Amino acid sequence: MTGSSTYLDYNATAPVRPQVKAAMMAALDLVGNPSSIHAGGRAARAVIEAAREAVAALIMVPAQTIIFTSGGTEANGLAIESAVAAGSRRLIIGATEHDCVLETALASGAAVEIWPVDANGVADLAWLGERLARWDRADGRPFAALMLANNETGVIQPTGEAADLLRTYEGWLHVDAVQAAGKIIVDGRGCGADTLALSAHKLGGPQGTGALTFGPRAVLSRRLHGGGQERGRRAGTENLPGIAGFGAAASAAMTDMAQIKMQAAWRDEAAAYLKTEAGIQIVGEGATRLPNTLCLAKTGFSADLQVMALDLAGIMVSTGAACSSGKVRPSPVLTAMGLEPLAGSALRVSGGWDTTQLDWTRFAQVWLEANQRHQSRRPASAA
Amino acid sequence: MTGSSTYLDYNATAPVRPQVKAAMMAALDLVGNPSSIHAGGRAARAVIEAAREAVAALIMVPAQTIIFTSGGTEANGLAIESAVAAGSRRLIIGATEHDCVLETALASGAAVEIWPVDANGVADLAWLGERLARWDRADGRPFAALMLANNETGVIQPTGEAADLLRTYEGWLHVDAVQAAGKIIVDGRGCGADTLALSAHKLGGPQGTGALTFGPRAVLSRRLHGGGQERGRRAGTENLPGIAGFGAAASAAMTDMAQIKMQAAWRDEAAAYLKTEAGIQIVGEGATRLPNTLCLAKTGFSADLQVMALDLAGIMVSTGAACSSGKVRPSPVLTAMGLEPLAGSALRVSGGWDTTQLDWTRFAQVWLEANQRHQSRRPASAA
Repeated sequence: MTGSSTYLDYNATAPVRPQVKAAMMAALDLVGNPSSIHAGGRAARAVIEAAREAVAALIMVPAQTIIFTSGGTEANGLAIESAVAAGSRRLIIGATEHDCVLETALASGAAVEIWPVDANGVADLAWLGERLARWDRADGRPFAALMLANNETGVIQPTGEAADLLRTYEGWLHVDAVQAAGKIIVDGRGCGADTLALSAHKLGGPQGTGALTFGPRAVLSRRLHGGGQERGRRAGTENLPGIAGFGAAASAAMTDMAQIKMQAAWRDEAAAYLKTEAGIQIVGEGATRLPNTLCLAKTGFSADLQVMALDLAGIMVSTGAACSSGKVRPSPVLTAMGLEPLAGSALRVSGGWDTTQLDWTRFAQVWLEANQRHQSRRPASAA
Repeated sequence: MTGSSTYLDYNATAPVRPQVKAAMMAALDLVGNPSSIHAGGRAARAVIEAAREAVAALIMVPAQTIIFTSGGTEANGLAIESAVAAGSRRLIIGATEHDCVLETALASGAAVEIWPVDANGVADLAWLGERLARWDRADGRPFAALMLANNETGVIQPTGEAADLLRTYEGWLHVDAVQAAGKIIVDGRGCGADTLALSAHKLGGPQGTGALTFGPRAVLSRRLHGGGQERGRRAGTENLPGIAGFGAAASAAMTDMAQIKMQAAWRDEAAAYLKTEAGIQIVGEGATRLPNTLCLAKTGFSADLQVMALDLAGIMVSTGAACSSGKVRPSPVLTAMGLEPLAGSALRVSGGWDTTQLDWTRFAQVWLEANQRHQSRRPASAA
């Protein structure tokens, strides 16, 4: 990040990549509805189909299995509502899923069961196996939602193993890959997903665009009715600039995977330093995690105060999921991990395509100073 | 329209205005999720709220009644699905409504009744009055959808009168103002709407952004679940660049209303010329219409051939709704007007913010030449 500020909140939204801006500007100069048959319409259509190829390539799936949506929330919602429409009456939802997954499930009319995680935030596969073994066929086809990587902790889930279990029962695995795509290699089918959701803005594309990809066992229904766009699966004039930007972001993400991978070393160095100097706890430390994400907790130093102190110093981080802002409650993710006492003091630091080692170093130094000031102001009895 | 091509398909999508491109570029340079509490998040939030004010100003409603959506299809769908969720079991749908209104209604589980139009495409108010007088309260609150202006013909509907009738029965009027906004003055409440849908790209904003505004009698439900965005009414990270562009388009549309109004004279001149020279019929001629739209028909000269001949000459027009492309069927709009015999030869020509009188003149001349070539090629028996 250039300039005087340091942005380490990529899991909330990533800075838009320069290639994305260029692609969007070019798309905004086109004049035509992609459904129009004249020259302008055909040019717009070509941009959308090229972007579809690029997004498909990022997750190694056929382009015709990509449905563009207005974002990750719509993509996750489409998968869940499709499963319910196809007859699933009971949904298994990972305990650390994003709110858009859990709340769509709760609003769907189906019964919802929470699939527990261990202290590292990893889904309990034994629980799933046991639950599926006593599945009541009256509940329809088993459906489970398991995110590829958690937005707050970066913890990566065993989607392949979960898929293997579900397959035995002709189940449907939905994978929210919104946080994983662009940060680790995502194999859209190899990860076991029957449906998989993406969001452009988490990988340096624009906000307002996402995608759902689907395999042969998924039965999709349509949530937006009207025109025949997206092969009849999602009506509404396509978001031409957004989709163009998504395609450019997907292509760029494929080329900078090595740079993102290096974040892990920079992050771990910063974390080790703060552990030694200030005794922070690292959430999900025992699990495989995204290379860019650090969820740290320091009991007695509230997350809000941490965010504010860092913000004053020009460092932007988060207390958890950005969409949870304004919701006053402990993080459901940490609560599910049995870490509720830490939830009030847990900070999420997340880098990305434009993050340097200096950003991580600067964060660690500024955080340490803020913590020292905070500790010196606290009464001894509360120390 | 500059350059060698003439774009007269604004009702499919309008060219993006320069102010919109500038606003979107500025928004793409911001780094922050609008839900984040740090400086980057707050800057993004400010852009969204300024755009909300601009869109609200265009249709003269309070900003807090604007919900941003992914487009007109989602906005129309949200209104209809909300009415059904609130207990309406029977929906009255104008005969010339856009597919996204009709198909959402048909998919909603409620009964659907088609509200007929006269030969000019104007909704039959006597029919509505009679229908409401025998309304069965078991069908819940009456709901009717009536577009402010038709996308294919430009015909403007008597929404105020319809609203007066519906009010008597505590009904809900939904107005699809997607085609009207930016072309005529839209009074979001004065037009009688309880809910009203907009689309950014029809008025020179980007594709992928729309809005729904709601009055005190509307009971909205939520279709996208998860984060608390849009005051809890529409989850998902906001489309920051799209919304910024929508705001800029709304502001610009307010200043060029006079220019759009002049289109009517240019259009009428072109239409009169083609009537004299080639005996075209003008669909909806007896109704009040948008100033920018001309729906003409020339029996024996198929609409597809007209579009192709014009496209070869660099003039982009449409056979009807762009989203109907690929659907092989006569236009339901013309069919509803009792003009099915014309449907196969009806052309939609629509100008907008960047259209000059020369564009209309050029269209008329090129169309006339194409028609002359076509007539000369037809066997005498078919003439």
